[in-house]
Amino acid sequence: MNPDELKKLLKKVKGGKLNIEQALDQLKNFSYKDLGHTKIDAHRELRTGYPEVIFCTGKTVEQVSDIIKHMLSRNNNILATRANEEIFDAVRRFCPDAQFNTLARTITIKRKDMKSPATTITVVSAGTSDIPVAEEAAITAEFFGNKVQRIFDVGVAGIHRLYDKLEDIRKSRVIVVVAGMEGALPSIVKGLIDKPVIAVPTSIGYGANFNGLSALLGMLTSCASGVTVVNIDNGFGAGFTANMINRL
Amino acid sequence: MNPDELKKLLKKVKGGKLNIEQALDQLKNFSYKDLGHTKIDAHRELRTGYPEVIFCTGKTVEQVSDIIKHMLSRNNNILATRANEEIFDAVRRFCPDAQFNTLARTITIKRKDMKSPATTITVVSAGTSDIPVAEEAAITAEFFGNKVQRIFDVGVAGIHRLYDKLEDIRKSRVIVVVAGMEGALPSIVKGLIDKPVIAVPTSIGYGANFNGLSALLGMLTSCASGVTVVNIDNGFGAGFTANMINRL
Amino acid sequence: MNPDELKKLLKKVKGGKLNIEQALDQLKNFSYKDLGHTKIDAHRELRTGYPEVIFCTGKTVEQVSDIIKHMLSRNNNILATRANEEIFDAVRRFCPDAQFNTLARTITIKRKDMKSPATTITVVSAGTSDIPVAEEAAITAEFFGNKVQRIFDVGVAGIHRLYDKLEDIRKSRVIVVVAGMEGALPSIVKGLIDKPVIAVPTSIGYGANFNGLSALLGMLTSCASGVTVVNIDNGFGAGFTANMINRL
Amino acid sequence: MNPDELKKLLKKVKGGKLNIEQALDQLKNFSYKDLGHTKIDAHRELRTGYPEVIFCTGKTVEQVSDIIKHMLSRNNNILATRANEEIFDAVRRFCPDAQFNTLARTITIKRKDMKSPATTITVVSAGTSDIPVAEEAAITAEFFGNKVQRIFDVGVAGIHRLYDKLEDIRKSRVIVVVAGMEGALPSIVKGLIDKPVIAVPTSIGYGANFNGLSALLGMLTSCASGVTVVNIDNGFGAGFTANMINRL
Amino acid sequence: MNPDELKKLLKKVKGGKLNIEQALDQLKNFSYKDLGHTKIDAHRELRTGYPEVIFCTGKTVEQVSDIIKHMLSRNNNILATRANEEIFDAVRRFCPDAQFNTLARTITIKRKDMKSPATTITVVSAGTSDIPVAEEAAITAEFFGNKVQRIFDVGVAGIHRLYDKLEDIRKSRVIVVVAGMEGALPSIVKGLIDKPVIAVPTSIGYGANFNGLSALLGMLTSCASGVTVVNIDNGFGAGFTANMINRL
Amino acid sequence: MNPDELKKLLKKVKGGKLNIEQALDQLKNFSYKDLGHTKIDAHRELRTGYPEVIFCTGKTVEQVSDIIKHMLSRNNNILATRANEEIFDAVRRFCPDAQFNTLARTITIKRKDMKSPATTITVVSAGTSDIPVAEEAAITAEFFGNKVQRIFDVGVAGIHRLYDKLEDIRKSRVIVVVAGMEGALPSIVKGLIDKPVIAVPTSIGYGANFNGLSALLGMLTSCASGVTVVNIDNGFGAGFTANMINRL
Amino acid sequence: MNPDELKKLLKKVKGGKLNIEQALDQLKNFSYKDLGHTKIDAHRELRTGYPEVIFCTGKTVEQVSDIIKHMLSRNNNILATRANEEIFDAVRRFCPDAQFNTLARTITIKRKDMKSPATTITVVSAGTSDIPVAEEAAITAEFFGNKVQRIFDVGVAGIHRLYDKLEDIRKSRVIVVVAGMEGALPSIVKGLIDKPVIAVPTSIGYGANFNGLSALLGMLTSCASGVTVVNIDNGFGAGFTANMINRL
Amino acid sequence: MNPDELKKLLKKVKGGKLNIEQALDQLKNFSYKDLGHTKIDAHRELRTGYPEVIFCTGKTVEQVSDIIKHMLSRNNNILATRANEEIFDAVRRFCPDAQFNTLARTITIKRKDMKSPATTITVVSAGTSDIPVAEEAAITAEFFGNKVQRIFDVGVAGIHRLYDKLEDIRKSRVIVVVAGMEGALPSIVKGLIDKPVIAVPTSIGYGANFNGLSALLGMLTSCASGVTVVNIDNGFGAGFTANMINRL
Repeated sequence: MNPDELKKLLKKVKGGKLNIEQALDQLKNFSYKDLGHTKIDAHRELRTGYPEVIFCTGKTVEQVSDIIKHMLSRNNNILATRANEEIFDAVRRFCPDAQFNTLARTITIKRKDMKSPATTITVVSAGTSDIPVAEEAAITAEFFGNKVQRIFDVGVAGIHRLYDKLEDIRKSRVIVVVAGMEGALPSIVKGLIDKPVIAVPTSIGYGANFNGLSALLGMLTSCASGVTVVNIDNGFGAGFTANMINRL
Repeated sequence: MNPDELKKLLKKVKGGKLNIEQALDQLKNFSYKDLGHTKIDAHRELRTGYPEVIFCTGKTVEQVSDIIKHMLSRNNNILATRANEEIFDAVRRFCPDAQFNTLARTITIKRKDMKSPATTITVVSAGTSDIPVAEEAAITAEFFGNKVQRIFDVGVAGIHRLYDKLEDIRKSRVIVVVAGMEGALPSIVKGLIDKPVIAVPTSIGYGANFNGLSALLGMLTSCASGVTVVNIDNGFGAGFTANMINRL
Repeated sequence: MNPDELKKLLKKVKGGKLNIEQALDQLKNFSYKDLGHTKIDAHRELRTGYPEVIFCTGKTVEQVSDIIKHMLSRNNNILATRANEEIFDAVRRFCPDAQFNTLARTITIKRKDMKSPATTITVVSAGTSDIPVAEEAAITAEFFGNKVQRIFDVGVAGIHRLYDKLEDIRKSRVIVVVAGMEGALPSIVKGLIDKPVIAVPTSIGYGANFNGLSALLGMLTSCASGVTVVNIDNGFGAGFTANMINRL
Repeated sequence: MNPDELKKLLKKVKGGKLNIEQALDQLKNFSYKDLGHTKIDAHRELRTGYPEVIFCTGKTVEQVSDIIKHMLSRNNNILATRANEEIFDAVRRFCPDAQFNTLARTITIKRKDMKSPATTITVVSAGTSDIPVAEEAAITAEFFGNKVQRIFDVGVAGIHRLYDKLEDIRKSRVIVVVAGMEGALPSIVKGLIDKPVIAVPTSIGYGANFNGLSALLGMLTSCASGVTVVNIDNGFGAGFTANMINRL
Repeated sequence: MNPDELKKLLKKVKGGKLNIEQALDQLKNFSYKDLGHTKIDAHRELRTGYPEVIFCTGKTVEQVSDIIKHMLSRNNNILATRANEEIFDAVRRFCPDAQFNTLARTITIKRKDMKSPATTITVVSAGTSDIPVAEEAAITAEFFGNKVQRIFDVGVAGIHRLYDKLEDIRKSRVIVVVAGMEGALPSIVKGLIDKPVIAVPTSIGYGANFNGLSALLGMLTSCASGVTVVNIDNGFGAGFTANMINRL
Repeated sequence: MNPDELKKLLKKVKGGKLNIEQALDQLKNFSYKDLGHTKIDAHRELRTGYPEVIFCTGKTVEQVSDIIKHMLSRNNNILATRANEEIFDAVRRFCPDAQFNTLARTITIKRKDMKSPATTITVVSAGTSDIPVAEEAAITAEFFGNKVQRIFDVGVAGIHRLYDKLEDIRKSRVIVVVAGMEGALPSIVKGLIDKPVIAVPTSIGYGANFNGLSALLGMLTSCASGVTVVNIDNGFGAGFTANMINRL
Repeated sequence: MNPDELKKLLKKVKGGKLNIEQALDQLKNFSYKDLGHTKIDAHRELRTGYPEVIFCTGKTVEQVSDIIKHMLSRNNNILATRANEEIFDAVRRFCPDAQFNTLARTITIKRKDMKSPATTITVVSAGTSDIPVAEEAAITAEFFGNKVQRIFDVGVAGIHRLYDKLEDIRKSRVIVVVAGMEGALPSIVKGLIDKPVIAVPTSIGYGANFNGLSALLGMLTSCASGVTVVNIDNGFGAGFTANMINRL
Repeated sequence: MNPDELKKLLKKVKGGKLNIEQALDQLKNFSYKDLGHTKIDAHRELRTGYPEVIFCTGKTVEQVSDIIKHMLSRNNNILATRANEEIFDAVRRFCPDAQFNTLARTITIKRKDMKSPATTITVVSAGTSDIPVAEEAAITAEFFGNKVQRIFDVGVAGIHRLYDKLEDIRKSRVIVVVAGMEGALPSIVKGLIDKPVIAVPTSIGYGANFNGLSALLGMLTSCASGVTVVNIDNGFGAGFTANMINRL
């Protein structure tokens, strides 16, 4: 229940179109809905502006389905990350218009429109192998109503590919930069452009990459001011934050 | 052989109802029973109050079966942790009333009752994905005769869900808090409630979680006094300690 | 040389008020000024919106002095971080109006005004010991012309102190949260407020804190969406990014 | 203000011995006292049973003095940990009866008595070098009114020294075991005694000890059930938890 | 070719029973035999007293077979560690008397006897799950002609099981102690017995065990003098060193 | 397009054999070719002397195929590393003369000859298990036109095998040394020979090897001057650098 | 009290030369002597063959003095490791014949002779900087009555220096090899000589040495069989074990 | 004694200008000179082309002086790294023309000329704070007779400073790139220039830099082919290798 919906309900009560009993009934699960295994944070939209997003790792197919069913019953838009084919098959059975992005591993369901900010978010990836994480960021940003520009495979080994796209990137309001290996791309981008850069280290690489540690440490110790970092492979977190900044 | 049983035996010897030979025979495996691969610590119950619990990881199906058979022959209650379907199938063949909890991965067999403390243990989990570890803690505490209250999915991203349950939690004597990711929940709970908190970090998360390291370090460096920590995913250890404190 | 200054110069050339020779002379060090040990990035202001900031660690007193002298000669505002008394003494000799903040270890010199955004940045610290890092963030944000609200010592061990300040925090446009130990505060704040949160782990703590690692990992694995992280003790980076977002 | 003091005040209001104005005045700083740098959690005693303890690391001498002065003005008992001679000199100036324990690095000031539990806490140390941490635990437990038995230097290299003291240890209600190097002592103690064991790893050792990491990991992976662990060198945390369990 | 065989050959040459040509032919591969992928160190027996042992990890079935075939052609005894069923099936085809120990994952083939030292090596394991590594140590020691006493599952959680076997252990000349989790057993054993102790950490455990790191660090920082350590799970190395010491 | 080809094109334009339109068409993808998922760095050969090499990890079969097809259309030689059977099957379908080396996991396709330097590169491996990485280095060096000498299984446990080959190694111009476990071989080789040594740590080993960390740290801290190191298992990087040095 | 002294006392009792009272008095502190801060393990000599050695780190000057005084009162030989000038000054005051080795940082006092084994221990160091640790090993071995051969600075960067000394080393019964940096020397020595090698990693080095980690991991993963390892910089542990093996 | 000197000596023997006795005397210390604490590798120059360099860390002033004196007696050029004022004062007393570079911490003494290669080595540093390490590399390369071009402070935060110098860098034969923090500069340089790049990570930075770990991992996982890496802060190693490649 978002602020607009809450206001409408209260107006109806005031105007006598809804009696107290009816209002209470609608507000019963206002704070959270307890499914036993999960307490869906129904209040989050009111408090933080966005409905809960479902992180599928470690949840059973049944648990994810329960959560989505309940949220659909409240007419929420759905974003489930780290999903897989098995979960999607279960969801499709009760919600045929669900979408699955195999690269980004996201399930999305749209029930109501979100206002689109006028400005754009750009998602940049260093390499082809970083695309799944970059896509998770892009789809998350789009889910929340943003225009997203994708610029992939412009890593520092062939830096002229980045220069070629610099003007396009400059036009956006906030930039998500996804990179594995040494994670140098966010420093370069931030050194060239006066916009907030959200850096996403990926676990792409091997050996001394140590599952993304090299990119993570590289980004945290970036010599360019104005780079902030999210967890390894956390495309969702970057897309979510980019949306939040884009809407300011 | 627990203290009560030992006392009975000694009384029988004193009263002449058991001759020395017979007593010796009964006491033969008093200290431990050597199965070759395993020395079952028969003395533990006398020394520490509780029979040995079987940690299945790294043991063959045959070894686990041998141990359970011997313990059943001495009329022990059985708790086997980190079990799997294959082990359970083998156990069920010689003990049809064995119970398997698929979430907690525990096998339990009940042969004698334990006195129940009057007070309650509460097991709190931060997320839905932490439930398997939380269940291991809860089942362990119940196995040793405790009343257990489960409160799941009240993590810090929607902290009002915790507040809603605070009064219920306050009524318990000791609290087990299970959390992955940043492992912040035990600090919050301990900051609000005057009861011992046993924190269990889980390996839930990805990237900089490093298989539970982030939650472990977070709990160890908790700014709230009175939090103690067990190993990553060690629901059993938390449940066992909670029982011990609840019985004081 | 910022965009406005550059425009003026070009207009003068166009209007014939400045001949090519004179313009060239003024533009000579346009790209960077080479001091031998240091190449001052004179172009940065044009490219990223802000003049270079001096990170004093690893530089000799002479090097820092050289850099500041050159930048003053170009009428730049000066921010030097990780400074110490020895550096400040040297700077004061040629620039008596330099300011030294002993807690934040910053030297600031003001030569021209910056436009102030209408909105506010809030800097929150978990503990008293985190104040030096929080001050570095606050002073950096103020240096770039922002209004800064400081709310210190509201860590999770006494979370009601945070609740008491929640309304104040909600009014700001972007929030910097500074915390050591388990680094849980950013998750709590983000779970309650719909604004971008920049998390700064500090090296405050001991033992399993491992010089800030526990707070860093905790913040990176935060279960609250929309938290981004900078390097351990990097108050400057957080203040700089907060300014950038506040000006969008 | 502890629960008893709060009750008295409310009774006075009810009985008309205190008017609303006066009561409000006394309750003004009920929740916390804001010193600017520090928000003293005055509510903690009510909420968690114990007043705030001052962790001196990272605080200036002035900040610590401010906090102690304010707490003394409310007639609190004072425990400051990780103190040093400089802080103590400052405190002694305004509070001549303050006590400094050079080994444990604690400052204690007593203003009101605490009820003593009938049962005892035992603090065991593995080596002579672990005594400072063990003393911090013992003094903390004594500060909160407990009887404490100290048994030092009974590490596993000469395990008969422990056996000799086993009966003494068994009589206590909860045991704090402090050990550096391989941190094996808690496992041994727990394997022999049916009482909760709080394990404190110390940074004593060198090389592969990695500042207490070896003892920390050893204790976390203890093969004995019922061992819980606090941070490296965290004698205070162990003493605090022991008190909490001893009072149950 | 061991020293005895070399002496015989040289005597034959001296006595004219072998001409130079023939001797050269026999000595041709004296130093090493080059199989392309592998250079079998034929000289090792002469230099270090023992033939080369085959570590199967990372070698193809064909490579292992080639090596064994060549060594058999020189009448060597064979010990292959970290073998598996697939390798054993290939070996059995050309050497039907090869033995495979499924627990220890060793293949052994005997072609000539080794002199047996009079004294015994004892292999102690802390838990049932440590047996595979303990067996690798025991079989290695037996392969080189030693008498081996196995004492399994006497870990520190039930230390009386160790005491019960102490006299048996004392009679041996060198002791291999195998333990996972906190790795405390070697310290205990060494504290009680005046014999060299070779400690083998195992990767048994979970969470903060970090694949054997906790046991490894625990053993390296042992407070008992005279403990030396081999790599995690390196039963072979321990058995080999025990043999070397037992033969002194 | 390499420098020679570019020169030819420009000469044709100058000589009127190619009109501007035609030249533009040929130069259109001069800088890079954008395949959507990948931007093939067509300019690299001009800039760094060598065409792009395809690192297959994290790329789909379709993406690798697209890249190879495009590069073949420009008549490039192809080297794809970390390939597998599935990728090779796809490639063979449109390019029947592609070669797959199962040990080194490389796909190579030859379209034009490269000039061969007169001097030789030697690739040395410490053990049989290190051969896959050594082969990746050797094949890479050969792909770029170098003569490569392979010397395998000459690790430090039988150092005479190395001595035997020392004269052969000395004749080469640059040496790649591949080793796992303790990674000592590069130090030995460099201590004996006056040539640049490129050290490649491998992940061969177990336990305290920590996936190649022991070899990596060993090589980085080598006491022999003139050893440089590439990433764990990075045979390609070593072969590429060796080629670059061999061509100087 | 060593076995011989104990036997004498018992004979006196048997022969009536000592009455029970007198014997009890002499045996009173038989098990350990409790100094409050320290429990001197008087039984150790009987149990493990050697008196307790004093590890000075973390002990106050007073504590070390107390321990030495008590041990001298029982006519023990004294070995104190990790001592410093301050401790030595205190000891010299009550024991003028105490010896301090500034390199090894050991204090030694001799009161009774130990039988010398016929065979020799060799202590080898890789570099000049490793000498302090090597000396600690050598002095420890000499303290326990062994002949020690020192061979310093024969590291792998100039391996011919080792070869030159090989015959000398071969004559010893057990070899201690001390090395920092990549820690490769023990593998080389063990590959050449058929004797037990005790490897001591040192913290000599910088950067990726990580305070001895590189040498430690290198030695643990040694490809040469029969190398066992002690803690970083633990010269004492190596000397102690060497003595134990030399006396077998 | 370098090859030329050796040849001369042998010619004199052949020509009868030197009798066997005299030759032996001159060759006596040919292999190494044993100073007790140090065995100076006199053979190194013959074997690897360069005399031994003295690494001062961990050596006493006396040991360094002894080594330098002996080497001067053989007319060697001297390079001592990681020196300090105290060592330099001692050296200057017996060698007044010794040079000390305070930034690079090197002592150099010149006794004979080295042939200079025609080509140049370029040493690039990312920041001003990296200069000490860069200077160590530059001075080492110059010591061995190379022409060195220094280009400092061209890090990725202002990448146009690098572009400005690209043509100068391209003219050199081998490039040393020194960088701390995220260590991104070598990837950029290598992506732009077709020359071997030796990357030197520095410990400049703080927090997640972890004493150079971030730069080290970043360089090892560089996405640009042809980058090799030396130890953290190892300017000497980079300069030495650059010389070796420059002389090929």
